[in-house]
Amino acid sequence: MALGVSGFPLTMVVHILAIPAIIMVLVWNIHFRGGLSWNSSNKPLIFNIHPVLMLIGVIIIGGEAIISYKSLPLKKKNKKLIHLVLHGMALTLGIIGIYSAFKFHNESGIDNLYSLHSWLGIGVIILYGIQWILGFVVFMYHGDGDGGSSSLRSKAVPWHVLMGLSVYLLAVGNASLGFVEKLTFLQSSGLPKHASEALLVNFTAILTILYGFFVVLSAVSPSSTI
Amino acid sequence: MALGVSGFPLTMVVHILAIPAIIMVLVWNIHFRGGLSWNSSNKPLIFNIHPVLMLIGVIIIGGEAIISYKSLPLKKKNKKLIHLVLHGMALTLGIIGIYSAFKFHNESGIDNLYSLHSWLGIGVIILYGIQWILGFVVFMYHGDGDGGSSSLRSKAVPWHVLMGLSVYLLAVGNASLGFVEKLTFLQSSGLPKHASEALLVNFTAILTILYGFFVVLSAVSPSSTI
Ligand code: HEM
Ligand code: HEM
Repeated sequence: MALGVSGFPLTMVVHILAIPAIIMVLVWNIHFRGGLSWNSSNKPLIFNIHPVLMLIGVIIIGGEAIISYKSLPLKKKNKKLIHLVLHGMALTLGIIGIYSAFKFHNESGIDNLYSLHSWLGIGVIILYGIQWILGFVVFMYHGDGDGGSSSLRSKAVPWHVLMGLSVYLLAVGNASLGFVEKLTFLQSSGLPKHASEALLVNFTAILTILYGFFVVLSAVSPSSTI
Repeated sequence: MALGVSGFPLTMVVHILAIPAIIMVLVWNIHFRGGLSWNSSNKPLIFNIHPVLMLIGVIIIGGEAIISYKSLPLKKKNKKLIHLVLHGMALTLGIIGIYSAFKFHNESGIDNLYSLHSWLGIGVIILYGIQWILGFVVFMYHGDGDGGSSSLRSKAVPWHVLMGLSVYLLAVGNASLGFVEKLTFLQSSGLPKHASEALLVNFTAILTILYGFFVVLSAVSPSSTI
């Protein structure tokens, strides 16, 4: 199937979109939502870690991991290592970020896992972990030049790409669900519909979607100039 | 980029997933939400048309339109026509569905276009319309065998596929946002978090995402057995 675009600095667009997205999620949680804290009697500050780590970890660093083969002027072997390490960081930050949502719920007497967002979220992080482990075993352990396994590697590539992009898009969609859910909670406890905070949250979600779009576009495109 | 799966009846999975999705959105709106009505003093019945038409129109019929090249055992020319007509139906039902959300808002004194869902929704339907018109002009009007324009056609294909799949995925993500938003509204006006209705809505959303996944997988896969 013919897909993708060439001759356009797609990966540069990804790097650039990351900057306002990171700034906006921080401004939202630190300025509007009162800050981030791991231990606090003000329990919502514990929750605030969740969107920050999910966005910066899974979406931004995970996205940079996906495009690292296209964006870096390095040898294949080094790019492989960077791809693996960046995904490892994304996964770790994602697990800590989910833990902070559970911690907030537990310390505030709120149920866990009652929403579509939370179920998809668990699905995303489990698939992300499986994908990481499979990638590690198949592409790293069975390194180049050790005979028979290189045919396993080349057969695994399309599946790895397909599953990787699917899980990533699910993460992007799920992050948008998270933003909308949190905003609707805030609005049902009094935040006006047209508050500047609502605009900020919605535009962070739009940037997230745009970022994810350019990550996938970079990945499926034949090559990238930058 | 190597993507996709072959030898698996992907388009059959799409047809089959459509059935419970349609049943569930109807059961939700007719049984749990009181029914569908274009004119009623019970204004929420006007809104109920919105999820039903968006899901059946844009997601299900739009998805069937996308996979029609793969799923139908017909001549290219006939498949083209069916692709165009199904997308035309999806677009029409989508416009009527959005109109019903506006109608409900206007007759209930609720603002229009205050949410991420509504902005993305307007974006989706405009892009869907542009894509339909461009497809019509490029692929239908410049029919096969009229010389120079066939090179325009073949250059346009990857863009048409890329934009088509992107708009479709955005529609799928946006439908999920819609389900979550509506459910959160209902919960903030008293629906218990674990009501069977909540489960129904969330599973309809999961089916929607799964359906969209198999539509895109069918489209990017090299071929399909059924
Ligand atoms: C890839 C990104 C994300 C994943 C995988 C994810 C995953 C999760 C999981 C597993 C939970 C359940 C915690 C529990 O039940 O105790 C949760 C809760 C929550 N998340 Fe996220 N999240 C992501 C991004 C976001 C973002 C960006 C926001 C924006 C504010 C957000 C908002 C929420 C909210 C409001 C809850 C609590 C309500 C609920 O459980 O639905 N999430 N998330
Ligand atoms: C492709 C699918 C969809 C598109 C393009 C779409 C588009 C839109 C648009 C443009 C509006 C704004 C109406 C106004 O401001 O007056 C809207 C409102 C709404 N939609 Fe959808 N919709 C879709 C699917 C759904 C689904 C499946 C649901 C599930 C219940 C849903 C729930 C809502 C709700 C609750 C509103 C009113 C609140 C708001 O404006 O955000 N939508 N939709």
